[in-house]
Amino acid sequence: MKAYAMLGLNQTGWIEKDRPVCGPLDAILRPVALAPCTSDVHTVWEGAIGDRHDLVLGHEGVGEVVEVGELVKDFKVGDICIMPAITPDWSSGEAQDGYPQHSGGMLGGWKFSNIKDGVFAEFIHVNDADGNLALLPPEIPPETGAMLSDMVPTGLHASELAKVRYGDDVVVVGIGPVGLMVVRGAVLAGAARLFAVGTRQNCIDVALAYGATDILSYKEGPIYEQVLDMTNGKGVDKVLIAGGDVDTFDEAIRMLKPGGAIGNVNYLGSGDYIKIPREEWGVGMGHKSINAGLMLGGRRRMERLASMVVHGRIDPSLLITHRFEGFEHIEDAIMLMKDKPPELIKPVVSIKY
Amino acid sequence: MKAYAMLGLNQTGWIEKDRPVCGPLDAILRPVALAPCTSDVHTVWEGAIGDRHDLVLGHEGVGEVVEVGELVKDFKVGDICIMPAITPDWSSGEAQDGYPQHSGGMLGGWKFSNIKDGVFAEFIHVNDADGNLALLPPEIPPETGAMLSDMVPTGLHASELAKVRYGDDVVVVGIGPVGLMVVRGAVLAGAARLFAVGTRQNCIDVALAYGATDILSYKEGPIYEQVLDMTNGKGVDKVLIAGGDVDTFDEAIRMLKPGGAIGNVNYLGSGDYIKIPREEWGVGMGHKSINAGLMLGGRRRMERLASMVVHGRIDPSLLITHRFEGFEHIEDAIMLMKDKPPELIKPVVSIKY
Amino acid sequence: MKAYAMLGLNQTGWIEKDRPVCGPLDAILRPVALAPCTSDVHTVWEGAIGDRHDLVLGHEGVGEVVEVGELVKDFKVGDICIMPAITPDWSSGEAQDGYPQHSGGMLGGWKFSNIKDGVFAEFIHVNDADGNLALLPPEIPPETGAMLSDMVPTGLHASELAKVRYGDDVVVVGIGPVGLMVVRGAVLAGAARLFAVGTRQNCIDVALAYGATDILSYKEGPIYEQVLDMTNGKGVDKVLIAGGDVDTFDEAIRMLKPGGAIGNVNYLGSGDYIKIPREEWGVGMGHKSINAGLMLGGRRRMERLASMVVHGRIDPSLLITHRFEGFEHIEDAIMLMKDKPPELIKPVVSIKY
Amino acid sequence: MKAYAMLGLNQTGWIEKDRPVCGPLDAILRPVALAPCTSDVHTVWEGAIGDRHDLVLGHEGVGEVVEVGELVKDFKVGDICIMPAITPDWSSGEAQDGYPQHSGGMLGGWKFSNIKDGVFAEFIHVNDADGNLALLPPEIPPETGAMLSDMVPTGLHASELAKVRYGDDVVVVGIGPVGLMVVRGAVLAGAARLFAVGTRQNCIDVALAYGATDILSYKEGPIYEQVLDMTNGKGVDKVLIAGGDVDTFDEAIRMLKPGGAIGNVNYLGSGDYIKIPREEWGVGMGHKSINAGLMLGGRRRMERLASMVVHGRIDPSLLITHRFEGFEHIEDAIMLMKDKPPELIKPVVSIKY
Repeated sequence: MKAYAMLGLNQTGWIEKDRPVCGPLDAILRPVALAPCTSDVHTVWEGAIGDRHDLVLGHEGVGEVVEVGELVKDFKVGDICIMPAITPDWSSGEAQDGYPQHSGGMLGGWKFSNIKDGVFAEFIHVNDADGNLALLPPEIPPETGAMLSDMVPTGLHASELAKVRYGDDVVVVGIGPVGLMVVRGAVLAGAARLFAVGTRQNCIDVALAYGATDILSYKEGPIYEQVLDMTNGKGVDKVLIAGGDVDTFDEAIRMLKPGGAIGNVNYLGSGDYIKIPREEWGVGMGHKSINAGLMLGGRRRMERLASMVVHGRIDPSLLITHRFEGFEHIEDAIMLMKDKPPELIKPVVSIKY
Repeated sequence: MKAYAMLGLNQTGWIEKDRPVCGPLDAILRPVALAPCTSDVHTVWEGAIGDRHDLVLGHEGVGEVVEVGELVKDFKVGDICIMPAITPDWSSGEAQDGYPQHSGGMLGGWKFSNIKDGVFAEFIHVNDADGNLALLPPEIPPETGAMLSDMVPTGLHASELAKVRYGDDVVVVGIGPVGLMVVRGAVLAGAARLFAVGTRQNCIDVALAYGATDILSYKEGPIYEQVLDMTNGKGVDKVLIAGGDVDTFDEAIRMLKPGGAIGNVNYLGSGDYIKIPREEWGVGMGHKSINAGLMLGGRRRMERLASMVVHGRIDPSLLITHRFEGFEHIEDAIMLMKDKPPELIKPVVSIKY
Repeated sequence: MKAYAMLGLNQTGWIEKDRPVCGPLDAILRPVALAPCTSDVHTVWEGAIGDRHDLVLGHEGVGEVVEVGELVKDFKVGDICIMPAITPDWSSGEAQDGYPQHSGGMLGGWKFSNIKDGVFAEFIHVNDADGNLALLPPEIPPETGAMLSDMVPTGLHASELAKVRYGDDVVVVGIGPVGLMVVRGAVLAGAARLFAVGTRQNCIDVALAYGATDILSYKEGPIYEQVLDMTNGKGVDKVLIAGGDVDTFDEAIRMLKPGGAIGNVNYLGSGDYIKIPREEWGVGMGHKSINAGLMLGGRRRMERLASMVVHGRIDPSLLITHRFEGFEHIEDAIMLMKDKPPELIKPVVSIKY
Repeated sequence: MKAYAMLGLNQTGWIEKDRPVCGPLDAILRPVALAPCTSDVHTVWEGAIGDRHDLVLGHEGVGEVVEVGELVKDFKVGDICIMPAITPDWSSGEAQDGYPQHSGGMLGGWKFSNIKDGVFAEFIHVNDADGNLALLPPEIPPETGAMLSDMVPTGLHASELAKVRYGDDVVVVGIGPVGLMVVRGAVLAGAARLFAVGTRQNCIDVALAYGATDILSYKEGPIYEQVLDMTNGKGVDKVLIAGGDVDTFDEAIRMLKPGGAIGNVNYLGSGDYIKIPREEWGVGMGHKSINAGLMLGGRRRMERLASMVVHGRIDPSLLITHRFEGFEHIEDAIMLMKDKPPELIKPVVSIKY
């Protein structure tokens, strides 16, 4: 089969690979809609997970089932399904302890284009189909459905990590596609005032549409100073991080109230240490909790989020700024993500059969 | 001073009373906007809290500070404030244990027109002004602000009790003014599909505006049967109760999934027992939790909810169907609540000086 | 193979059955230590789960692996394992939503001697071996290990349901083997004063050894009156229920503080309704939450509880009052459970090979 | 009155001060048992809270009420009371939001020998007596009661911060008097295996008595390596920090499982930054949460913890290694804390009248 892969550091291209084999609990799908992710860019051009050869890229998409293992009960050939970026082993100890994302070890639920080949292929292997696939509701176009693989669940997890509640003042750092979903997730967790940090106009427009009330820019000075100024020096209840780097946490602590919390869903690609300023952290006694974690994947999460889309709570279609038709355009889409033109939020590729 | 009071069971009228005395921690306010509540009707015409004589009615309103005690630090004469229906003793053991509503004993935080005179008076006493008053933000008209005393906090508490989360299917039983706020609160806690149970057109319109996705009517058969039919026999994740009576819980249990929860904010005025059906409750092992509680009052709650109004998360003005001007119209407003014409959601009385 | 079964209502006996077939994810074990449970008695002599024919009884035990399916990774022939009473389908939607006990439907995780044959057989089938078996630590004798299948996890779940915390005053209703573990679990969740309700001397001795501070008897009058008397009329923070019937909840509500909680782990075998007294429940606003649920099963739960035994937190061997040797004594053990002589807490049967 | 004070950096001594004035909500007590704390040492000899002149030291003790304000309802002259180290303003916004420790600003609930004079004086002022004093139960000697001001509540808070639960493997870093209470608190929150890090024999003996199962020493190599070795490379569920410095968090992250948590109650006296190692923190996606906070004070907390002592859950008397009689011996006691002889855990001073 044909697939688009990381050939080595800084190199991508089309390769031929064997069609994946379907285990008794698994399913094989062919792609219907695919989206590249900034993580794919990190993987190839920043070596975020090390050097890899002929690793098929991609972890976001909707597919059509073409084969199911003999133990699969709930899916059949022809079903159109959301494939979550994170596909845990649900019987693992970590899942039983409440952290399926880390089944088999830290980040072990992240299999696509990490532990195994990704979704940018003519045939895609999904482990534990009954546990990890979700039917795409007919009300959701496949392209929008592809946003449910990673953008929506990662974004909404930030508010869960920080326990956003009714009336919280919230800062969202970073309003790329994940950050925008963080904004929407915070509103749907009860946020009142919501400061979104970003500068690109397309993103600002969607942030406002999703419920941001104030837009802040790094160009106007340190964010924490702006936030403290705008809150009478009190700071905010929650800081949700979907952008920046290891130094972002320093600012975040400075603009948090005691009793506040950070919820980070940003992949920290470089730097040795996250640094927490001792004094502003209340010399270890300030109750400013620091939480960070990979999105929750699996079938029920997809079903729950798809239901939120169907019932009008979230409109992920606003994220899609570029649309391609044809499997061969995956390359164009991923190059867009790499080059990040200012008008880009998220590209998506449709495949018709 | 002049006040509108319960004279005895089934009797209300205007009386003369002494102006309340301001303790060192307290404040005296004069009313700026007042609203009657169904609870006032329960108190007078159903004897819900027993017989009372010359008890001033009312617990919802916005007022202007006319006097503060010598230990009050944060408020001064002239401040326009929200007066919460529940004004706890914040140093009490119950508040320290997390339940200020029950300070000094079950429901002990409910003081207005229960333990002491209510707000339908020319002068209103608020205990612990620093702990229980909140400045009305200038963006909120006083009439809308009066909805923050009880309707908004009571409504939003239902989702807190039941721990509504992203993607939950939710039933809201009762869409009077509190039930409508339950609907809005569930949306802002992450609900996906939201069944609202009610029949009055005005209320249905607001329920849809607040985010209900399906309207159910008792006229079409038992609610739990309709819900089970519409969810492939699975039931819903949460049932939020803002209407009905002690028998509503029987239906609620029948339409809940295992692992589901009830959040009740309805005052149960009569009946000896709430009855939980043994089998549908999983013979005591079904993880269908039953939660019920009085709204959280006090200053911070008011500030948080007011901030949600200012930032566009909640629009309680949609509740107001009848507006009066002049203190003397309290009587008309409360009689409206008693007679409940079909087009009524909530009346409010403005007082100009 | 030989097995001890429910032949029909009120009838038990030895039968011949086919050895169970091992699926690709499953394991077959032979019994090493087995214990009967009051639930077995309910099943046969009270028809709690309806009429059944030749259903093998038993859901508590330690076994030795004699066969594993081809997809099993972590267990091999010869391993001595705890078999939990509840063996969920970990990929199910209910498990993903946090309730593996209810995988596939309410109580669906309870398979042994309910949905399929139980453990009182020469060969025992365990679904999803990697997810549901746990190695018995060498420090724990198999007979004590058999207490980990149901008694320990059911008992400890009560404090989880009621969220017992540091300094809580707690009542435990019922001090049979589960109730005794409820006592221990409450101490290990932070309980301060702990009232245990029971009358049998053996059980009282163990309750005191496990940390009960006060023993109450129904013979001295209604329990709620005794508790209110002993707490200056205030009541307690938590009521944990491991005995009684549907009427026990009425008493429980009466002795709870506002803000308190019930945690029920008692199987309610008869009665149409659990009745919650309206007034003492704060007319629906008292924050007395009612929680009830089946124990959490599966591998990690077993591993966690076994670790608590190994490290001296729990000593379930105190529960064992009667010991038998030989598979054929299962009948004696279950008859003991049926007849409940006063000195009985729990019998166990060892099988040597 | 006579008092023992910080005269300036590195200087302490006896001074004369005016007897404190009792506000309407307050109480004045005379000391019955007092204990110095390592924080007093930090304050004087490390300048932890900056330079201060004639600031009375001390925040741990039991006292006798000699005067109450006119609004105090629950205490009277002659009552023997525990004085918590943290005495919040319970009506403050922070307290209403769930963080009384930070009433009026970060760490604002810490008033003794910080915002106002401490307890090492002939007369002691306690703000909000009804909210912040607790009767000492007659079963508890005053010297043991003095451990309830700070050692017990600070120690037990670590497990609350990290949400220790049944079967957790836990590391406790530091087994001075607070760390020992962290050990006991972890056991009473459900810990299974418990590694305690320390080297002084007196402390090790008490750690074992409180429930530690393994003692680790820095002399044997980096703690995280020892812990990883002893847990098959898996690490532990929770790391509770009661000693060390800003670098301790680096080690803590390395020995935590994904899904694990840190609970820090250690005052971090120096260093610019706490450093979190990026990779071991799961590149920002590992669900290793970092929690740190000041103890919860006030009346109910004291009552709850005193009840745990009365009912045999905690025996803080094991902490007391040195006992003095007479107010004048405060100086000896604090110098002991400063010099830290190897056999010291905690000194206490009794005052008889």
